[in-house]
Amino acid sequence: MESLMIYMPIAMAALGLIYMLIKKSWVLKQDAGDGKMKEISDYIYEGALAFLNAEYRLLAIFVVVVSILLAIVSVVVPTTHWLIVIAFIFGAVFSAFAGNIGMKIATKTNVRTTQAAKTSLPNALKVSFGGGTVMGLGVAGLAVLGLTVFFIVFFHFFMGGVWSTEMIMSNGKLVSQGNFDMTIVLETLAGFSLGAESIALFARVGGGIYTKAADVGADLVGKVEAGIPEDDPRNPATIADNVGDNVGDVAGMGADLFGSYVATVLAAMVLGNYVIKDMGGAITDGFGGIGPILLPMAIAGVGIIISIIGTLMVKIKSNDAKEDQVMGALNRGNWLSIALVAVSCYGLVTWMLPETMQMNFFGEGLQDISSMRVFYATLVGLVVGAVISSVTEYYTGLGKKPILKIVQQSSTGAGTNIIAGLATGMISTFPSVLLFAAAIWTSYAFAGFYGVALAASAMMATTAMQLAIDAFGPISDNAGGIAEMSEQEPIVRERTDILDAVGNTTAATGKGFAIASAALTSLALFAAYVTFTGIDGINIFKAPVLAMLFVGGMVPVVFSALAMNAVGKAAMQMVEEVRRQFREIPGIMEGTGKPQYDKCVAISTEASLREMMLPGLLTIGFPLVIAFVPMIFGMNNLAIAEMLGGYMAGVTVSGVLWAIFQNNAGGAWDNAKKSFEAGVLINGEMTYKGSDAHKAAVTGDTVGDPFKDTSGPSMNILIKLTCLIGLVIAPILGGHAIGGAVTTSEVMEVSTTMSNTMDVEMVSLDANNAKAIVTKTYTENGKMMKEEIVIEGTLEEVKAAIAELQKDYDM
Amino acid sequence: MESLMIYMPIAMAALGLIYMLIKKSWVLKQDAGDGKMKEISDYIYEGALAFLNAEYRLLAIFVVVVSILLAIVSVVVPTTHWLIVIAFIFGAVFSAFAGNIGMKIATKTNVRTTQAAKTSLPNALKVSFGGGTVMGLGVAGLAVLGLTVFFIVFFHFFMGGVWSTEMIMSNGKLVSQGNFDMTIVLETLAGFSLGAESIALFARVGGGIYTKAADVGADLVGKVEAGIPEDDPRNPATIADNVGDNVGDVAGMGADLFGSYVATVLAAMVLGNYVIKDMGGAITDGFGGIGPILLPMAIAGVGIIISIIGTLMVKIKSNDAKEDQVMGALNRGNWLSIALVAVSCYGLVTWMLPETMQMNFFGEGLQDISSMRVFYATLVGLVVGAVISSVTEYYTGLGKKPILKIVQQSSTGAGTNIIAGLATGMISTFPSVLLFAAAIWTSYAFAGFYGVALAASAMMATTAMQLAIDAFGPISDNAGGIAEMSEQEPIVRERTDILDAVGNTTAATGKGFAIASAALTSLALFAAYVTFTGIDGINIFKAPVLAMLFVGGMVPVVFSALAMNAVGKAAMQMVEEVRRQFREIPGIMEGTGKPQYDKCVAISTEASLREMMLPGLLTIGFPLVIAFVPMIFGMNNLAIAEMLGGYMAGVTVSGVLWAIFQNNAGGAWDNAKKSFEAGVLINGEMTYKGSDAHKAAVTGDTVGDPFKDTSGPSMNILIKLTCLIGLVIAPILGGHAIGGAVTTSEVMEVSTTMSNTMDVEMVSLDANNAKAIVTKTYTENGKMMKEEIVIEGTLEEVKAAIAELQKDYDM
Repeated sequence: MESLMIYMPIAMAALGLIYMLIKKSWVLKQDAGDGKMKEISDYIYEGALAFLNAEYRLLAIFVVVVSILLAIVSVVVPTTHWLIVIAFIFGAVFSAFAGNIGMKIATKTNVRTTQAAKTSLPNALKVSFGGGTVMGLGVAGLAVLGLTVFFIVFFHFFMGGVWSTEMIMSNGKLVSQGNFDMTIVLETLAGFSLGAESIALFARVGGGIYTKAADVGADLVGKVEAGIPEDDPRNPATIADNVGDNVGDVAGMGADLFGSYVATVLAAMVLGNYVIKDMGGAITDGFGGIGPILLPMAIAGVGIIISIIGTLMVKIKSNDAKEDQVMGALNRGNWLSIALVAVSCYGLVTWMLPETMQMNFFGEGLQDISSMRVFYATLVGLVVGAVISSVTEYYTGLGKKPILKIVQQSSTGAGTNIIAGLATGMISTFPSVLLFAAAIWTSYAFAGFYGVALAASAMMATTAMQLAIDAFGPISDNAGGIAEMSEQEPIVRERTDILDAVGNTTAATGKGFAIASAALTSLALFAAYVTFTGIDGINIFKAPVLAMLFVGGMVPVVFSALAMNAVGKAAMQMVEEVRRQFREIPGIMEGTGKPQYDKCVAISTEASLREMMLPGLLTIGFPLVIAFVPMIFGMNNLAIAEMLGGYMAGVTVSGVLWAIFQNNAGGAWDNAKKSFEAGVLINGEMTYKGSDAHKAAVTGDTVGDPFKDTSGPSMNILIKLTCLIGLVIAPILGGHAIGGAVTTSEVMEVSTTMSNTMDVEMVSLDANNAKAIVTKTYTENGKMMKEEIVIEGTLEEVKAAIAELQKDYDM
Repeated sequence: MESLMIYMPIAMAALGLIYMLIKKSWVLKQDAGDGKMKEISDYIYEGALAFLNAEYRLLAIFVVVVSILLAIVSVVVPTTHWLIVIAFIFGAVFSAFAGNIGMKIATKTNVRTTQAAKTSLPNALKVSFGGGTVMGLGVAGLAVLGLTVFFIVFFHFFMGGVWSTEMIMSNGKLVSQGNFDMTIVLETLAGFSLGAESIALFARVGGGIYTKAADVGADLVGKVEAGIPEDDPRNPATIADNVGDNVGDVAGMGADLFGSYVATVLAAMVLGNYVIKDMGGAITDGFGGIGPILLPMAIAGVGIIISIIGTLMVKIKSNDAKEDQVMGALNRGNWLSIALVAVSCYGLVTWMLPETMQMNFFGEGLQDISSMRVFYATLVGLVVGAVISSVTEYYTGLGKKPILKIVQQSSTGAGTNIIAGLATGMISTFPSVLLFAAAIWTSYAFAGFYGVALAASAMMATTAMQLAIDAFGPISDNAGGIAEMSEQEPIVRERTDILDAVGNTTAATGKGFAIASAALTSLALFAAYVTFTGIDGINIFKAPVLAMLFVGGMVPVVFSALAMNAVGKAAMQMVEEVRRQFREIPGIMEGTGKPQYDKCVAISTEASLREMMLPGLLTIGFPLVIAFVPMIFGMNNLAIAEMLGGYMAGVTVSGVLWAIFQNNAGGAWDNAKKSFEAGVLINGEMTYKGSDAHKAAVTGDTVGDPFKDTSGPSMNILIKLTCLIGLVIAPILGGHAIGGAVTTSEVMEVSTTMSNTMDVEMVSLDANNAKAIVTKTYTENGKMMKEEIVIEGTLEEVKAAIAELQKDYDM
């Protein structure tokens, strides 16, 4: 019986999207200000569209190529269904569409925020956060909608919408038909996740390169060489710079979290299927026997509604409010949604899961796990999400000890500033990694890897809220830029600056949330990978696995370097273009000649998409090489699966470290530089902008820019995409290929020999080459005897031998 | 029968030490120059002694504390023998003594090199390299001597110098008495290695902080504030700076390689014992049945003689020689020794090992391995040693592409210079890690982890030669400083500058060799650890193990940050002291007042030893916490052992990455800065010292200094010491305690049931609680049947059941 519960997430997602549309039309109805403002806003909007269109062209090629590859694989490998291609394409399209909504609304909201700031600060917050809300709900709504719809479609296509409790062989193990079919459903659904994460690669890495190339290019020539202020309309790169804020911080972050959201829920579903397997292949509940699989989707669905409630709390009343009040309003909304998620996790977990489950703990056997323990695991996830933000805030926040130290070290020059910033980023890995390690351990101890995946799901439930908070920052930043460029009254800029300052803090904590989500998602994917391949575990005492752990550890480091170099190259091109325009366009400096903004936008766009190729290739190529090159040389598939697992672990561990290091070092340098704006006390003397110490701090910020906006956040994509590619390859490496030749009926015959004290397990199987392990447990002369007999031969021979044993045994 | 071969390494070590003494007396007989030179040299000598004495005081406390802890452990834990305390103390003393010899000869050779440079360049090289040779042979000779003597002592103490082939239970497995006793011998010998590596912690980390604190302090006040040149005798920190070269580059590097050398040979011996176990617990050869265990010591012994031959090749004839000729002479010696090691490995391996061995490959069972394959594994080690130097040379060498790129990026400021340097260091992990991964894989494929350990042994065989090449650099650097301070003719400084320039290159490649040796040593120790604990492997699919992999990955990052901060703090103290002296000592700038060199030396000494405490504590504390805290909470010992293994793997993978990254980034910045001395072409314009680009490059070098001389090289110690602590803890975690209750005679009875087709393995065992796995393999109706029967009960019951099965089987 199919439960209606399966449609609940769709309803929630639809509600979210409807609310999003209402909010969107409200935002668009706001006053877009005067002609000058509109003009600038239109430039930014068009620049953003230009990037999107160029990105889509490249994406289309990428999607076609990968689709063809996936299609070939699905034809060659019997365990991969061609529907994975459809899922992949839709995953990419949904993610791209969500990005499109976000970019468009962000570039429409910015000018409306400027206009609202003319009236009051509360209004400005309302508009800018309204834009963020549209973005957040668009991403979360589409993610949940797409994933759920495809799950239902595949559930009906492969299983007729019903869980079958028949016992069959799969991957050499005896499982229920339901488990087997659900594995196919989820393997195919992985295509959706892969599609989404591929877009994230383009949006996050490409966007990261774009935003910093434009920023550095605009600053180097504009501020340093020509001596004109930031956001000055005479600077040809200034529009590209503002577009970059949207491309990197809005679309990039959105695609990143879209990918995490989908992958987390998927991984939790895979592990939910595994829980049912551990419980004997079938459970009886009010949800068609798939409660543990539906639960993560249900949490995601409820999370959307909770996020809407959270966003409603974000408002201020006083026009004289300062950063603290704005931050307080955001925090109120954030904490409320976290608390609501905790409450609804309690309700959903106790409602949807069997009161007691059996889970197989590696090396410890089956254990009874109560549904309450699953709830505790979700709490772990919520705690991690909250604590990681505080940790990030501590290491990168204005006025905090690490920042003050960097400020002090700036007085002895750029060298000591750099060392202090690097050291801060490095030390910040200490609490962060201990937090992750504790989260892995405890959520696993509560409820196995299903617990780890649900911890991630609970954390991600507030994605819409997180994104709203995140997106409002760059919108306010842009609003300030427009105020500057259209020469508004100072009060307007002051108000947008308050929002922008809060946005800088939320940007840092948002990065913390994103890396935490990427880390937990990767772990869940990693666990799902192991279940898909059917390997016993990943033993790093095998030299090839250890070697791949090393290689995996190296990839994030090299990826980061490539991303940083890409920014350098793209920025150089931008510098030359800006110099050329200053040189060739008459009257540009006097404001009579008009800069060619579009040329700069085009350069950023092309350079960013070109420069992301190599790191992208590295990300996708390495797992493929590790999986398929040894296969050509005839290496055993399970050995390869273990090697690939070692690689994935290496990438995840090293990637998380480098993400934290780079994000926090970059954030710390940024705020150390900003500290000089209000003045800082160095060796008993107040020091301001323009001092030597400030110049040293600016150097630190230059280094920190690609760290925190390009290479650091890219790590999230690298580790998730690596684990997802592993997951998609998993069925090829796993035992399915071996077991595929056996029809269900043939196997059923074998499985009838099962009894309480005699277990038959087929470990590899085709008509000519079968192997079975028969385990008998019995008591003789008061001693417990366990007998394991391995039989090898043709399938017929093996079955005959099993029958013989069964006969002996029954006597 | 004991083979005389066991004494061969002692003879070789003694020969090496005798040659060292001859060379030493030759160096000391050289002219030490005029009064001014002698005076300066004496200051440096005394400064070095002051550091050594302070270090020894601290060391004495450390050694006493650790000895007491070890003694307590050896009383509480039955598997740990109190002799480990003696071994530990002697390991520390031998390493400290080797460092003492090195420091003393280096600080005596510097002035003699200056004097020799007055006559000719060939003479200067002869003297400085002579000093290096003394250092190299002192380290290698004492390492081999100490390790071999203690091995022989323990071999006689625990085994009476004879390998027993009786079969007994150990660690729940059936092994020969020989294997069991040898494990005790080697576990006790691990104390020697632990002692040696502890000294390396002090020498490398403390030394690294010392040298950079003095360097930065001297530069910041002397060069920048007071505007006096480097090595100016008016600068109070100049002596400390010169002492630092010896403390960091001579003593630090020496202790590092001393530790690697001992640990590598030890790990190879442990794995040799394991080979004998895989071959049924006993072999017959001309070496008392312990050929595989003696082989690594033999290679080390022969390596000493080969290094002597290599050093004899290092000479030049022409007084007009340039860097290339000097480098060529060093390379000649180096390549000759590598070739000779290859030849002698062939001889020793084929002579000392059985022609065919059985080795147990994890998950693949026993395989036949020919001795030739072990030889191939040693070749892998030699190739890694050679290639890693070329890789390092490429990424840090003057005139190479990466350096030129950093130089170009310096033109746009310090920020871009820093980014380029960071990116270079990061990218350099790509070939290095692929090389290590390939080395692990291939040497393992050739001959299992014994192959990995022998690859490391072969690479380390030329340690004496490597150290001679390494130590000659700082000696020449000092010689140049003395020439400057004592105001010699410019030609003298020119000649020492040629040697110094070559020394800078060898310093970089030497760091590559050191990290390669640390990486391979750690892997070998890691493998030895697994055999000691008796765990099946390290499965990162268990959440606690994965969590510890994360924690392990984080530790090198935090350690590096602490080391960098330590340099900053110590340098600040130095700056204040130098400022004070400039302010308070009358006539100091005019050269009439005498600076208080000793005060600066004292500050460097105290600060470095104080600041190394926290990173040292981190290194030692983490593995102890991971091992003992879960034990208090009643966690299973084998589970803890696996977690600790995960931690060790995390530290090793991450530590190797951060070592390469930091060493190469630092080396690259250094040489990018040096490139300006001869002038560089930037944007078509020749740019020299004093330009803005050069200033940017100086900033990069400031960041690079602690990278390459403090935190980077410290990684070697961190990863080796972590793995060694694991190895020393291993017997506590391992199953010895379980197997201890069974006497030999009882077990012998069981083992007689062993036959070709019926295997009995006892997996846990005391009188009341025994478990055995009986594996029968036989053919029935043309099918291969493998039957595994697990029997549990009291020891008597189990033995009875086995006898019953045996009877059935014989029928």
